Amino acid sequence: MAEKARLTLVGAGPGDPELITLKGVKALKAADVVLYDALVHPDMLEHAQGAELIFVGKRAGKYSVTQKEINELIVEHALKGDGQHIVRLKGGDPFVFARGLEEIAYAEQYGITGSVVIGISSIMLPGYYGIPLTSRGINQSFTAVTATTAEGGLSEEVVNAAKNSPSTVFFMGSRKLDLIVAEYQKAGRGDLPVAVISNGSLETGSYFKGTVDTIVGLFNEKQPEPPILLIFGHGAAHAHAVQSYKE
Amino acid sequence: MAEKARLTLVGAGPGDPELITLKGVKALKAADVVLYDALVHPDMLEHAQGAELIFVGKRAGKYSVTQKEINELIVEHALKGDGQHIVRLKGGDPFVFARGLEEIAYAEQYGITGSVVIGISSIMLPGYYGIPLTSRGINQSFTAVTATTAEGGLSEEVVNAAKNSPSTVFFMGSRKLDLIVAEYQKAGRGDLPVAVISNGSLETGSYFKGTVDTIVGLFNEKQPEPPILLIFGHGAAHAHAVQSYKE
Repeated sequence: MAEKARLTLVGAGPGDPELITLKGVKALKAADVVLYDALVHPDMLEHAQGAELIFVGKRAGKYSVTQKEINELIVEHALKGDGQHIVRLKGGDPFVFARGLEEIAYAEQYGITGSVVIGISSIMLPGYYGIPLTSRGINQSFTAVTATTAEGGLSEEVVNAAKNSPSTVFFMGSRKLDLIVAEYQKAGRGDLPVAVISNGSLETGSYFKGTVDTIVGLFNEKQPEPPILLIFGHGAAHAHAVQSYKE
Repeated sequence: MAEKARLTLVGAGPGDPELITLKGVKALKAADVVLYDALVHPDMLEHAQGAELIFVGKRAGKYSVTQKEINELIVEHALKGDGQHIVRLKGGDPFVFARGLEEIAYAEQYGITGSVVIGISSIMLPGYYGIPLTSRGINQSFTAVTATTAEGGLSEEVVNAAKNSPSTVFFMGSRKLDLIVAEYQKAGRGDLPVAVISNGSLETGSYFKGTVDTIVGLFNEKQPEPPILLIFGHGAAHAHAVQSYKE
């Protein structure tokens, strides 16, 4: 019996290796095996001294490990000997637009104890770039949407956000930027400010801003590197570089 | 000249003192003065050995420090001598439904260097309680709303969420739960699952779940402690206690 078999899901945060939590570092130190994503900063893996490191990320244009294969890798490694501690290190937060709950549910079927360490989602990044998602007296809500669908079109939720949401953060929307922009224009919101954030909280992080009507032209001109976050809303007009803390 | 005057805004995360980031701890260690909120766990202040600790939180029914007074305290302490390093430690993230950008802008007027350490917002908590905000094939977006308005009524944004949003997280909505529920009922969504999370990621954290039609009765019966987060959406039906990582 692999009695010590356990799985800990850890959110690695939005890029900067110092934006992992204290609890996340503790889990890495106690790991026998770490399964990590493409968005995980390599410096973070140094906390897992002695652990076996397995890359399971997706990279554009290359073969990527499927969710099924990840689930099976977790179980296979967790059940070795009298059980191993697997840390599944995922960029951002393991639950926001991610499949953390599925991985835990799958592992628990095999008697593997699951636990979590939540992390900073990319949803926090607009503040890092001076963009308030809500502002007293202007708006009290925001919407977060992932713009990819299996079919390739835009979901009804994107259309609803374009019509009704004062402030929307789009994940994985850059390939559909022109379609998203068209929906905002149909809703008569061509003047709404838009900001584009590239590379999150990494040192190579950058941003630019425009409006619904100008953002496609700016995007084609600047060709920002993925991962990319799009922010549509009044707050985007305030985008500026806020300094990340340094000693 | 107070040349060393600086302000660092640090997100303390959603309760659990180990859910602060490595960078947040570094800033606390380098602080001369820490201004902290009611939602900050006392254990976190131990990182700030030797710093002056000033409580500026709001507590129900008691006098609370105004935003203007907080801004003035930051400037007053930062400009002492040849300048001090002020850490403003805020529950959750300093930017999501918070006024971090205003505090930095105010301090910069006085020549104080501002920087930030983002933190885990309470928006990440649903995953901690087994609640997916989005699910493949069901919904691809969620909305976050703060339900308090200066006037005391419900904003148009709450009404929109009740009509259109597949999945909504309400902050500070518990006093208006009956009004929010009435909007969902008007929209014909009485069967929609609802979950209530109390005390975030603290050891005293708890949850219960029901539907739009049953949640007011359950709430009155259980009387959960604040801070409270409400989740309206299909994912709320999956609420269960996911184990937080422990050594």
